[in-house]
Amino acid sequence: MPLPDEFHALAKRVNNWGRWGADDAIGTLNLLTPEAVREAAATVRSGRRVPLALPLRQDGVQTGAIPGRVNPLHTMTAINQEIFGPGTVATSDDAVTMGLQAATHWDGLAHVSHSGRLYNNRPAGTVTAHGGAGALGIEKAPPIVSRGVLLDVARALGSGPDGPGRLPADHAVTPEDLTAAEELGGVRVRPGDIVLVRTGQMGHYLAGDRDAYVFPSPGLSVRAPEWFHARDVAAVATDTLTFEIFPPEIDNLWMPVHALHLVEMGMIQGQNWNLEELGEACAEEGRYAFFLAATAEPFVGGTGAPVAPVAVL
Amino acid sequence: MPLPDEFHALAKRVNNWGRWGADDAIGTLNLLTPEAVREAAATVRSGRRVPLALPLRQDGVQTGAIPGRVNPLHTMTAINQEIFGPGTVATSDDAVTMGLQAATHWDGLAHVSHSGRLYNNRPAGTVTAHGGAGALGIEKAPPIVSRGVLLDVARALGSGPDGPGRLPADHAVTPEDLTAAEELGGVRVRPGDIVLVRTGQMGHYLAGDRDAYVFPSPGLSVRAPEWFHARDVAAVATDTLTFEIFPPEIDNLWMPVHALHLVEMGMIQGQNWNLEELGEACAEEGRYAFFLAATAEPFVGGTGAPVAPVAVL
Amino acid sequence: MPLPDEFHALAKRVNNWGRWGADDAIGTLNLLTPEAVREAAATVRSGRRVPLALPLRQDGVQTGAIPGRVNPLHTMTAINQEIFGPGTVATSDDAVTMGLQAATHWDGLAHVSHSGRLYNNRPAGTVTAHGGAGALGIEKAPPIVSRGVLLDVARALGSGPDGPGRLPADHAVTPEDLTAAEELGGVRVRPGDIVLVRTGQMGHYLAGDRDAYVFPSPGLSVRAPEWFHARDVAAVATDTLTFEIFPPEIDNLWMPVHALHLVEMGMIQGQNWNLEELGEACAEEGRYAFFLAATAEPFVGGTGAPVAPVAVL
Amino acid sequence: MPLPDEFHALAKRVNNWGRWGADDAIGTLNLLTPEAVREAAATVRSGRRVPLALPLRQDGVQTGAIPGRVNPLHTMTAINQEIFGPGTVATSDDAVTMGLQAATHWDGLAHVSHSGRLYNNRPAGTVTAHGGAGALGIEKAPPIVSRGVLLDVARALGSGPDGPGRLPADHAVTPEDLTAAEELGGVRVRPGDIVLVRTGQMGHYLAGDRDAYVFPSPGLSVRAPEWFHARDVAAVATDTLTFEIFPPEIDNLWMPVHALHLVEMGMIQGQNWNLEELGEACAEEGRYAFFLAATAEPFVGGTGAPVAPVAVL
Repeated sequence: MPLPDEFHALAKRVNNWGRWGADDAIGTLNLLTPEAVREAAATVRSGRRVPLALPLRQDGVQTGAIPGRVNPLHTMTAINQEIFGPGTVATSDDAVTMGLQAATHWDGLAHVSHSGRLYNNRPAGTVTAHGGAGALGIEKAPPIVSRGVLLDVARALGSGPDGPGRLPADHAVTPEDLTAAEELGGVRVRPGDIVLVRTGQMGHYLAGDRDAYVFPSPGLSVRAPEWFHARDVAAVATDTLTFEIFPPEIDNLWMPVHALHLVEMGMIQGQNWNLEELGEACAEEGRYAFFLAATAEPFVGGTGAPVAPVAVL
Repeated sequence: MPLPDEFHALAKRVNNWGRWGADDAIGTLNLLTPEAVREAAATVRSGRRVPLALPLRQDGVQTGAIPGRVNPLHTMTAINQEIFGPGTVATSDDAVTMGLQAATHWDGLAHVSHSGRLYNNRPAGTVTAHGGAGALGIEKAPPIVSRGVLLDVARALGSGPDGPGRLPADHAVTPEDLTAAEELGGVRVRPGDIVLVRTGQMGHYLAGDRDAYVFPSPGLSVRAPEWFHARDVAAVATDTLTFEIFPPEIDNLWMPVHALHLVEMGMIQGQNWNLEELGEACAEEGRYAFFLAATAEPFVGGTGAPVAPVAVL
Repeated sequence: MPLPDEFHALAKRVNNWGRWGADDAIGTLNLLTPEAVREAAATVRSGRRVPLALPLRQDGVQTGAIPGRVNPLHTMTAINQEIFGPGTVATSDDAVTMGLQAATHWDGLAHVSHSGRLYNNRPAGTVTAHGGAGALGIEKAPPIVSRGVLLDVARALGSGPDGPGRLPADHAVTPEDLTAAEELGGVRVRPGDIVLVRTGQMGHYLAGDRDAYVFPSPGLSVRAPEWFHARDVAAVATDTLTFEIFPPEIDNLWMPVHALHLVEMGMIQGQNWNLEELGEACAEEGRYAFFLAATAEPFVGGTGAPVAPVAVL
Repeated sequence: MPLPDEFHALAKRVNNWGRWGADDAIGTLNLLTPEAVREAAATVRSGRRVPLALPLRQDGVQTGAIPGRVNPLHTMTAINQEIFGPGTVATSDDAVTMGLQAATHWDGLAHVSHSGRLYNNRPAGTVTAHGGAGALGIEKAPPIVSRGVLLDVARALGSGPDGPGRLPADHAVTPEDLTAAEELGGVRVRPGDIVLVRTGQMGHYLAGDRDAYVFPSPGLSVRAPEWFHARDVAAVATDTLTFEIFPPEIDNLWMPVHALHLVEMGMIQGQNWNLEELGEACAEEGRYAFFLAATAEPFVGGTGAPVAPVAVL
């Protein structure tokens, strides 16, 4: 079943192919200019650092529903080993196996294709087992540092201080919601910003209910990409596993936001970001823009990569 | 063969046990105060971002000499898979197996023990196969953001613009060398700084000679920890695999700097950082202090962790 | 809480320490003599081969309840890659990560210790992260080939041809049950035999109910080891994950059969063996002794190993 | 560059497509009939067991030359862990990551394609990252038990008892060599046999010279498949990494034997089998046919699989 006309119409409106040249491999990360970085640094006031990555553990967010996307398996290869003889300094070493997109991560541009094409009109077939993501590998991404803006949609739409601080599972985050969150935060998203959309869904996982966290899930509406495109943001991340609302809003149109962001716009997107402490911090400090450092681990050929993002307020 | 008296004398002089309480698990990372972070942000001028991580690839820096510390094995679990039926949006996914300390990484505090003890007098036996690093796991580290200072020892001691930009393999970086690099950079290291010591050794690897990179290697002298302790730095990283000079300066005293930093001072240390571009950038901009974002991937129980550090000038 | 006197009394009665010398590392596998092998070959009549291994897959028997014992993660490293240029012969390659004891496997002698000791009075501390199982590694096991005897306890105790063919979850397989199964099979277990005890529990997993398969589970009674010791068998395997009845028969005496077999007798034991087809085959052919080939994959330092056992009738 | 006519002519002569039906997925393993198994059992005389697998270790035969085909990484996930409380029975557990074809293994039928086709005219595209080998996965193979015949070519062509017992690196094993080895062994290969071709190349690895073992390597000539086809063998294994002579006999015709065996004949093939002890044993006992048990570990979707083969004399 081919993608519906509705999708193609949206795709046309947000498409960035060729915008940064025919060979471009980083898409909207081109918006991370020195000027944007300087402005980001200028937002730092309190010096408070908020970590946004989930701990990497075997009991992570993956339930097994996505084959191959395994939670981290942490194993030991040496424990207090006195390599150079009894009584010498001893070392412990470890190893890990994990899905690159199992935990807090960036989706790279090669993570999704549609109609046989990747971002910038590259053939989907350039993703291979031997070379991985190929030309669009996550290692191509530059250091990801910019102004971060928290759009706390859960808080903006919430009923009050005693509310659950969480969007309903069937809530699609619309452009209107994003604008409402801007208003709550007293901030306007600018070109080159990295937008963090808080739904509060992470609360399920932090409370120990992994299944509720995973599915069903609130998330971005198919209409959201146009808003991001209009604001010309560099990247978007959320506190959900599915990123976009799931199950989807339109029957038989699966993962349209993924396709619009990654393929059409060339915009990486983040999932499983823990925005709970950040939501509190922004509310306390009364400002929702900050310095964000969120460089992807540069796995060669990665279709995505773990990241340990930090917001500096 | 027990550690020599010489080692114990050094250990006594740099010991931080109890300094941040009997239960402290992060050592000198306590020096990353909001004030230090604010001052770090204030160093940003050009907005230039310099990545310090090596690409993560199977052909990485590990030669097999350290059993279990394997280079990243990147594998595919899905390629353009139309999960929801033919013609739908397609996804590609991947997985990785690697030593946590195989590439650009931080050594966590549990990476080394001596005399049966870890940092802050914890028993070495608290590192286990089941729980990994236990109380000193790398996931305990807060976001690592501070002022970074490049001490470009290779440049400071180099013979001139046409020189190799690399210390000889048998060069131990002394306190005097560190001070000379400060002078070259016109900067004085302060409490809470993260110091990056450039030896130029990474040039071997970047030129394709992995064996020359690994061994023998210049690196920190056993006398360097006292200098770092006097300046009260938060962390130190180098562009070598061994971190300290290897083979060691003193017969039968293996990895003394590891033991002094990790066990006595409670100071994490970074290895395999690519400081080549940063060396150029600092020389060009004529300043050697910058904003450094280098948060460890929070592997629960990790005795170390990959990191994708970025210097923002 | 130390092990109860009851356990120590049993241990004394089945102990084999020193029986094959102070340095012995294979225990009852010493009973696999050329004569036993010849007799095993002589049992072959129909030439029917019955596989006893479960397929190795991500959706295997592990539920996550045992940390680190992960189901196989199968990944691709090359797909139809024309290594030598377009149009040449193409190759596909793959890799796997798995717990050595995740699927159909043998427990090696180092898998369990009690009171600080392994089989043959070796210190438990000889198992290390660097060296794995050390002297008792599964790679020390000789080729495992002998007469196999199916003790189909489920069939022997079953109510009839329409019965579930499965022991209740709280059924401990006693010496009396084993003798009853011998009688059903018209066979008497001899020294050097490898005994396969069928409970029918595997039916749960084959029917898609992994949780029911894992726990609670019928299995060997704490009294069974004496029976095996008296018959002097070389090894025992079952069609359960826990091997012995679980939860255990005696409060606070966990895994006593593991301790008696592995530590006291020095007898390896097999778990997650699929005995369903074999049960049918033996019933059809009216004989319960056969040639069994079940050599462990020789992982150096393995505390256990996958095995692909085959019964040849 | 397409495959030369010479290859296609050979392919035509050994092709088995359709021989066992259009849906067949196991090729020449269909020749493992109950009768063949019975005859195999009848060869057992001394009861001597000879293991043919190399120990699985990080220091295995892989040199890194084949990307992704990593030697086994053995890691610990628990060491003497008293799961149920202090003083209880303690367990040790481990995990492994490895290339399925890294050590002693069988190439499955999906390991190689040519001209876009796999065995039995299946499209090469049925091998995918998600499903692995698909319909031709190694888990489809039945238990591999049959008469094994050692063709000790190194001994047959050797100069005498003091010779190196090893073919020169540039020696292609021809049909004439195979016949000479039959004569040495006083055995004639029959339909359903599994043939083990000894070149002696393994001696390099066993002597610690991995590089010499890997490349260059003696191995089967492009003419050998016709001989195996004429004798209608079930499978062939060798004591080399490359299986066939490498570099190849014919310029720009890479891996022709792989293509003929796997794609045209539908015959699995074994590599890195240690035939040194077996060579000695057969010479001592004066007979070269035996019972062979060599069932592949049933990895679902595997393009190959580890195997722990045993010859029973």
